[in-house]
Amino acid sequence: MSSVRWELMATCPHTGARRGRLHTPHGTVETPAFMPVGTQGAVKTVGVEDLEALGFQQVLANTYHLALRPGEALVARRGGLHRFMDWHGSILTDSGGYQAMSLAAHRTLNEDGVHFRSHLDGSALTLTPERAIEIQAQLGVDISMALDICAPYPCPRDEVADAMERTHRWAHRNLAAAAEGQAVFGIVQGGIYEDLRADSAAYLSGLPFAGMAIGGVSVGEPTELQRPAVAFTAPRLPADKVRYLMGVGHPSDILHAVACGVDLFDCVLPTRMARHHALYTLHGRVNAAAARWAEYDGPHDPNSVFPATQRVSAAYLRHLFKAGESMAARVATLHNLAFYARLMAEIRQAIADGTWSRLQARYANCE
Amino acid sequence: MSSVRWELMATCPHTGARRGRLHTPHGTVETPAFMPVGTQGAVKTVGVEDLEALGFQQVLANTYHLALRPGEALVARRGGLHRFMDWHGSILTDSGGYQAMSLAAHRTLNEDGVHFRSHLDGSALTLTPERAIEIQAQLGVDISMALDICAPYPCPRDEVADAMERTHRWAHRNLAAAAEGQAVFGIVQGGIYEDLRADSAAYLSGLPFAGMAIGGVSVGEPTELQRPAVAFTAPRLPADKVRYLMGVGHPSDILHAVACGVDLFDCVLPTRMARHHALYTLHGRVNAAAARWAEYDGPHDPNSVFPATQRVSAAYLRHLFKAGESMAARVATLHNLAFYARLMAEIRQAIADGTWSRLQARYANCE
Repeated sequence: MSSVRWELMATCPHTGARRGRLHTPHGTVETPAFMPVGTQGAVKTVGVEDLEALGFQQVLANTYHLALRPGEALVARRGGLHRFMDWHGSILTDSGGYQAMSLAAHRTLNEDGVHFRSHLDGSALTLTPERAIEIQAQLGVDISMALDICAPYPCPRDEVADAMERTHRWAHRNLAAAAEGQAVFGIVQGGIYEDLRADSAAYLSGLPFAGMAIGGVSVGEPTELQRPAVAFTAPRLPADKVRYLMGVGHPSDILHAVACGVDLFDCVLPTRMARHHALYTLHGRVNAAAARWAEYDGPHDPNSVFPATQRVSAAYLRHLFKAGESMAARVATLHNLAFYARLMAEIRQAIADGTWSRLQARYANCE
Repeated sequence: MSSVRWELMATCPHTGARRGRLHTPHGTVETPAFMPVGTQGAVKTVGVEDLEALGFQQVLANTYHLALRPGEALVARRGGLHRFMDWHGSILTDSGGYQAMSLAAHRTLNEDGVHFRSHLDGSALTLTPERAIEIQAQLGVDISMALDICAPYPCPRDEVADAMERTHRWAHRNLAAAAEGQAVFGIVQGGIYEDLRADSAAYLSGLPFAGMAIGGVSVGEPTELQRPAVAFTAPRLPADKVRYLMGVGHPSDILHAVACGVDLFDCVLPTRMARHHALYTLHGRVNAAAARWAEYDGPHDPNSVFPATQRVSAAYLRHLFKAGESMAARVATLHNLAFYARLMAEIRQAIADGTWSRLQARYANCE
């Protein structure tokens, strides 16, 4: 019996969007939901008290990075990742499958697993499905992702198919390795190929995963190819399980995916872009360090759900960026996370209220 | 009539320490007080809401740095530095006299003033006493420091004497340039030479400054020379004016200076040391990145006056530092500022209660 269960609350009368609740050992996550990315067990520049104030109920951390540093055994001795971070909400960990792609120069791959040379110091780390699941159990997270093989883009079709088939074989090993009550999510592969996506969704939907993810997107493909893949795959996943789109994306990508029936998201964009001066606003993305803000006395978002950012004028934030003050990245991160938190709250409301088209119009300028 | 007035409330029965209140246009500062350093109009890694939560009532900013970037005219058009930062407390600005020493390679000096080539882009900036006072008026700060000449250490006696004499001549120009109600503090020089210190204190005490500072310390001299200079100078300053020791220092330095009758402090140590992993504690300074903390589950200070830092275990903070997470510097900064805030609160209490020796024992391990 999985410790994680998703409950449907309402469906959008106009799209495939679903309003639901993801019940986890560390509380309920109102879906559709966005998870801030805390790769190393910390969301860059912000604290857990900030994430709480922003209203996030689940964060993402990374198996590969935490296994390297500080090591899952140390985290386990601390009582698990929740206590280590003092985060009382839910945690989902990526399995390391994405790093097997993004850090391809640092690993070899065979049927057994992924053999990394640490990107930090060259030390060896092997992730097999069994090991990835065991590490996530030691971290004590709410949701463990299956170890998968994620093909990059562009990639020959036969390599995408091979990656998918290995992902399917590994799916059984991931599930067999799960501890009593450990919730494991399966990951659909298949790249931009509809027949492969259909096969993968059908195959993995037959296995007893606690939730289902769409993987192999946000790996370099253009939006024109990503969205059809999402639109094609999402409805093929079990209706009674939560659907998680990995690594996506811009506000408009999230709106599109929610309308396709996706419930859960993570993405580095709001946090990473903030460190590069980029703020998400209803008028599109703006460069907070640009000269146009030098004498603008209002905040970038007077309706931010994070009050402290309303105290920072656009002029002052520009000064902080130009002066190299690290506070600038923090303020911008809080701004962007508040934008995403409000986006998700408004998405949930629009599904329940049947006002999807009004919501789409509101975010029409957001790439 | 100056807009700033210091009020004596109690004297320590055992030392020269004074408990008082500094009344400014932006509120009352309970003294002895410590000012966090916000060189560029921001205390590194923390926001004004954090400074408020820590209980600070006055911060320090820097005339030279703000004149270069973003420029005092831009700040003035924003309504002044308080509105630019959204800081409702008091602000004191250093005049740029210290930068004339610390950035000696970037300036020439004559009787008129200091002619800088910007350390940022080589552009020209001239600070005369008149200009320094005018810039500070444009910034709209509560307390403007006189432009002085600060001799480094070591330095031949005749050069220290020359710097002091020019500081005295400039004192009149600083005062003459002050706008109606602009509070200007004079700065005593004289280095480590008691006769020069005595001359400088006597000369400047005769001028209508709103407060008096001990300058020319924390310029490279060892503690064994700094403390006698402070002990010698402080009692020679007017009893009815606030006494400000510039750029000092360690908790033990502050305790020493308070006992000599100093009321006001600023120092980069708590904020700068934090970025280099150093935490102030009652057991001395500790390296938060050291291996000894790897498995320590408690916070570094369970009695911190800043609750968010109590949620961060020593083990987690070490991980953040080792993993290169910028949050580590923020947590350490908040820890150190909380340590200084509590130190000053306990100093004020000990003066009022006559329990100075108990306070000294409590901080005996703090360098």
